[in-house]
Amino acid sequence: MSFNRFGRVVSITTFGESHGPAIGCVIDGFPPGMEISAEEIRTAMLRRATGRSRHTSQRHEQEDVQILSGFFDGRTTGTPIALVVYNSDARSRDYSKISTRFRPGHADYTYHHKYGLRDWRGGGRSSARETAMRVAAGALAAKYLAQKFGIRITSWLGQLGEIVCDHQFVAESIDDNPFFCPDPACVPKLEDYMDALRKEGDSVGALVRARAEGVPPGWGAPVYAKLDSDLASAMMSINAVKGVEIGAGFESVAEKGTEHRDELTPTGFVGNHAGGVLGGISSGQPITLAVAFKPTSSLRLPGRTVDADGQPVEIVTTGRHDPCVGIRAVPIVEAMMALVLMDHFLLHRAQCGDVAPQTPRIE
Amino acid sequence: MSFNRFGRVVSITTFGESHGPAIGCVIDGFPPGMEISAEEIRTAMLRRATGRSRHTSQRHEQEDVQILSGFFDGRTTGTPIALVVYNSDARSRDYSKISTRFRPGHADYTYHHKYGLRDWRGGGRSSARETAMRVAAGALAAKYLAQKFGIRITSWLGQLGEIVCDHQFVAESIDDNPFFCPDPACVPKLEDYMDALRKEGDSVGALVRARAEGVPPGWGAPVYAKLDSDLASAMMSINAVKGVEIGAGFESVAEKGTEHRDELTPTGFVGNHAGGVLGGISSGQPITLAVAFKPTSSLRLPGRTVDADGQPVEIVTTGRHDPCVGIRAVPIVEAMMALVLMDHFLLHRAQCGDVAPQTPRIE
Amino acid sequence: MSFNRFGRVVSITTFGESHGPAIGCVIDGFPPGMEISAEEIRTAMLRRATGRSRHTSQRHEQEDVQILSGFFDGRTTGTPIALVVYNSDARSRDYSKISTRFRPGHADYTYHHKYGLRDWRGGGRSSARETAMRVAAGALAAKYLAQKFGIRITSWLGQLGEIVCDHQFVAESIDDNPFFCPDPACVPKLEDYMDALRKEGDSVGALVRARAEGVPPGWGAPVYAKLDSDLASAMMSINAVKGVEIGAGFESVAEKGTEHRDELTPTGFVGNHAGGVLGGISSGQPITLAVAFKPTSSLRLPGRTVDADGQPVEIVTTGRHDPCVGIRAVPIVEAMMALVLMDHFLLHRAQCGDVAPQTPRIE
Amino acid sequence: MSFNRFGRVVSITTFGESHGPAIGCVIDGFPPGMEISAEEIRTAMLRRATGRSRHTSQRHEQEDVQILSGFFDGRTTGTPIALVVYNSDARSRDYSKISTRFRPGHADYTYHHKYGLRDWRGGGRSSARETAMRVAAGALAAKYLAQKFGIRITSWLGQLGEIVCDHQFVAESIDDNPFFCPDPACVPKLEDYMDALRKEGDSVGALVRARAEGVPPGWGAPVYAKLDSDLASAMMSINAVKGVEIGAGFESVAEKGTEHRDELTPTGFVGNHAGGVLGGISSGQPITLAVAFKPTSSLRLPGRTVDADGQPVEIVTTGRHDPCVGIRAVPIVEAMMALVLMDHFLLHRAQCGDVAPQTPRIE
Repeated sequence: MSFNRFGRVVSITTFGESHGPAIGCVIDGFPPGMEISAEEIRTAMLRRATGRSRHTSQRHEQEDVQILSGFFDGRTTGTPIALVVYNSDARSRDYSKISTRFRPGHADYTYHHKYGLRDWRGGGRSSARETAMRVAAGALAAKYLAQKFGIRITSWLGQLGEIVCDHQFVAESIDDNPFFCPDPACVPKLEDYMDALRKEGDSVGALVRARAEGVPPGWGAPVYAKLDSDLASAMMSINAVKGVEIGAGFESVAEKGTEHRDELTPTGFVGNHAGGVLGGISSGQPITLAVAFKPTSSLRLPGRTVDADGQPVEIVTTGRHDPCVGIRAVPIVEAMMALVLMDHFLLHRAQCGDVAPQTPRIE
Repeated sequence: MSFNRFGRVVSITTFGESHGPAIGCVIDGFPPGMEISAEEIRTAMLRRATGRSRHTSQRHEQEDVQILSGFFDGRTTGTPIALVVYNSDARSRDYSKISTRFRPGHADYTYHHKYGLRDWRGGGRSSARETAMRVAAGALAAKYLAQKFGIRITSWLGQLGEIVCDHQFVAESIDDNPFFCPDPACVPKLEDYMDALRKEGDSVGALVRARAEGVPPGWGAPVYAKLDSDLASAMMSINAVKGVEIGAGFESVAEKGTEHRDELTPTGFVGNHAGGVLGGISSGQPITLAVAFKPTSSLRLPGRTVDADGQPVEIVTTGRHDPCVGIRAVPIVEAMMALVLMDHFLLHRAQCGDVAPQTPRIE
Repeated sequence: MSFNRFGRVVSITTFGESHGPAIGCVIDGFPPGMEISAEEIRTAMLRRATGRSRHTSQRHEQEDVQILSGFFDGRTTGTPIALVVYNSDARSRDYSKISTRFRPGHADYTYHHKYGLRDWRGGGRSSARETAMRVAAGALAAKYLAQKFGIRITSWLGQLGEIVCDHQFVAESIDDNPFFCPDPACVPKLEDYMDALRKEGDSVGALVRARAEGVPPGWGAPVYAKLDSDLASAMMSINAVKGVEIGAGFESVAEKGTEHRDELTPTGFVGNHAGGVLGGISSGQPITLAVAFKPTSSLRLPGRTVDADGQPVEIVTTGRHDPCVGIRAVPIVEAMMALVLMDHFLLHRAQCGDVAPQTPRIE
Repeated sequence: MSFNRFGRVVSITTFGESHGPAIGCVIDGFPPGMEISAEEIRTAMLRRATGRSRHTSQRHEQEDVQILSGFFDGRTTGTPIALVVYNSDARSRDYSKISTRFRPGHADYTYHHKYGLRDWRGGGRSSARETAMRVAAGALAAKYLAQKFGIRITSWLGQLGEIVCDHQFVAESIDDNPFFCPDPACVPKLEDYMDALRKEGDSVGALVRARAEGVPPGWGAPVYAKLDSDLASAMMSINAVKGVEIGAGFESVAEKGTEHRDELTPTGFVGNHAGGVLGGISSGQPITLAVAFKPTSSLRLPGRTVDADGQPVEIVTTGRHDPCVGIRAVPIVEAMMALVLMDHFLLHRAQCGDVAPQTPRIE
């Protein structure tokens, strides 16, 4: 069972609420011997942290992560790696006035019906704060994949509202702006749009794209442990995600077979509509995916809702919120992709061993 | 670990290859006492079976399913329910000539790299033949949900190539035509299109939509056992699927928060952009999703590929194939949705009990 | 969740009742490429089968096992291996008269309270018939371990009632007598005892011992995936088992530390009180265990019980039963040990790779 | 996969090393709404803590446990409950001199071969320190079982070395002495024995017994999720355990069927050789088990070993150790029993619902 666990061989179990004392995770099954430091993990976490530009929430997350176990002499030991971040700069008073009102688009109403009670401070367990630990764990997975296979995972903002953000793709630009936008020419448009949106008090959706290069062929499994099935599960488990596609995704619907099938030649595949996964198993091509994020539901524009007695009330969410959660989701998508890939390497190694079959391989 | 298993509390483990002796599944954890018969299961399976119209594969699947265990006196007993169907009308000779060639868009190349050997007859384990057992197991889940909660799951063809199939929605029509098309006016267009496509030798993608009505609020979990995360995993595990969306899905990208958030009033939610899931937990609204299927890769139009020695060769797939796998996928999507929902009911009952908290509920 | 599944990376899911149409199992996660045949599996199963001597049940199990999937060209393919044996020579009429009476020492009463209904024919799912599939699956695991590591697993009857059976240990004798007794001098005693017991109509308990030689150091894990914890779970899951010990077992209670701790010297460990497992991880020494089996509860000597209405009734179990279930349990213990060891090799390989750390090793 | 996780529906994932910064656990799947406080958990932990008498280790564990999540307004919320205890009074310097020597009877040698490196401070992950978190989590499970079903779990020292400790059974005495001994007359004997043993520098094994009363019939499952199989796994996962038995245990070996089978009468079962479990499912009788603990391997009496280069060296373990680990294991056995029982209640409820079948029940 895995209410709060993700992964098959290497797994993460996260805990913590947005306004509780701490958030954390336990990474179980991680291989021994990899060098890592708390500072490296923190650096990764800061890419996702709030308070780094005017376009995201103004809560200042310091991400002073501690490694509580599974770590000795600068290396992982093979035993469970526990990470914890004590919450700072949480203002629970922002929430007390809505403790008995169900915020539309939030999990308030559903928690109420599931558990009969809920921690109403800041979204509790459903806050995006939880995703900080995904990024922390993902930093370890990404380092492992890079060191062992040279795998590079890149994610970026593909679209924000109606604005397509990757007409031009300059990988180096992604971290040069607060939007993880790969097109330098697009950045000013995003700034203007976001400034207006913030003023308006509304929020907007976004599309995040990701690509993993260097994944060897053979990771995944044919039926329910499909690599793409686990990627879909991983992405859909991120807060605010409403859609996932691999490769050509929804464009496949209108494609013909002669167009979609990626033919093979001695120098490689012709095209990558498959997005690097065939029959649930990696093909050696780049793995590509896209994830749709809904607009933030926390708005200071008033909305209709009901309270715990079923009475109609108006709701205004103050607090400090991202007008577009999709922006800070970029490192989260990257982290989840790293976790799925590393898990599938270990799963593949369990069944089939370290050494790939000696067969002709098309890179 | 679950290479070939799906589900948390009630799970299915499927086995069998397209051209092996049999396919089957073991349903583990199913509650005791539900009446069911092999004939009921077979009826459900025949909706998915090939050979029922000229628009799908001409292999004649009889689906003579046997219940091997977990069944006594016409009822489930609580012990594992094993189902088996011996394969009939399999023509493996169709495949012998391509046993050393990697069919583009298929799992041949990836199996080769993963396992070092493969059962090349008819796609082996990656054949859509496996999905027959999903429909069989789904028939039990759907009956359970209908009897216990009155839940109704409906799925249909939403689009085939460029043709949108649900401009009009007449639920009763879905099973009146070979396309699971809810719009009677659209059926002739589909017939013409498919006749032309078959003549041409090409294939096309499709979109399948599904909706579950009557699901109580409270099923699911906040983080990694999210109801929508498990739905995404289930859908992406179906052969040929390249994308999944819940509720507004990819349309959320361009939506504003004021537009997307579904406000609440004493008479219910205003809109259902969420698709019936908030924070990973069912809200009591209909659960809605859409699934993108790629076009069949098995074409009689020749394509380029390489053989096991890496040499360029031409490939033509004869055999008997569906020009649009999305059509017969309609009952598969429905079955997977039933399995996920039933599993989440049991998971919810495990943690929170049979009786829902006594709180105001908005239906 | 695993109501009917055992194993972490390579798992078995069994199904079937004693008097249902068939029993079977699905072996999931088995590595590709191992040669095996149905006949080899059947040979292993016949060691456990009834009807081979007058000292066990007279039901004639033919064990005509079929491989339904995961098998191609004489080898495992890496996809799920399904095995099935159709039940033969089942006489359900023997049971109809006790369908409403709870047999003492059986699961009748507990099934009734758990499920509210039960398949009363021959013990249903709780029949030792289920263990035939453990032996079948164990045959694959044992072959894998033997081929890859030269691991030899031996199990034998250590005690039957008051008769100690391994004062002398001649490995070759184990399969020369119907008791799996390693001491040729003990066999006539066992024959006389069992003949008298059968005449008397009573049954008796037994102790089964097992040893695995050649297991490399490093398999297992420190806390909840301990090798010995999984062995204990495996053994206790066999019908009629009431106790399990590893190494010195219950004798450890009265031992001193200086006596129990196995010191190390450059030529190896001094003693093996640990039974080959230290801190949950294999040490490279032989892994040794013992398992206690209760006497069969099915007796033709009348006993007191109640019926489904709670009324007192007398019960006599006719049917064909083993007067000592511990005898035929010998191959089952061996099989479960093989399954646990193979699973732990794969689990270890997942996390730590194929190649052991380059460190001095004491054999 | 569950390297460091235990449980099916409600699970614990523990982390932390003896001399690392902290130990902790995440309890996942716990039902919402139960009142609990950190102080209650700490009280339970102190029963197991060192430094409470001269007969156990002199390290002073304060067990200042913090609840980091899953907790609001004094109640569990249904989200993961994270507990952490920062390690205090750890003296790692005690270990530096043995960092390259394998302590006999410890996991040093096996860790070395598994992981290639190890945290040598105080046994690292294999220290009994880990079990503190089992007791913490067990406190929640025990409270749940007591409140919901009135279940009472009792465990006690059954034997220490050759001294049988429960000739007389006075439940109230168990917590009146530092040995968890239920026989007041035995306590002076234990004191004398332990004083002599400490002087001698040696250690000794022990037997811990436990009993759960009030468990309803129907918990467990027929084959691999057997209640007794999970109890065996739980007990064998405790440090230093070498054997587990349920009910009559190893005495079953020499018993006859007429003696062992517990007949039923309208007023209840006659005897409880089964130990409250029939066919893997609880019968409503008390569940009884016994667990064998080996003597502590950490001795100040010198012993032979080898170092990491395979050279012979002498070893003396200073540090602060229990001369009999079995004593403080009493609350650990109790805790693991509570965790298994609670997990099986939830598992049973998942499949069969809250309400038991309306059948005659023999208490």
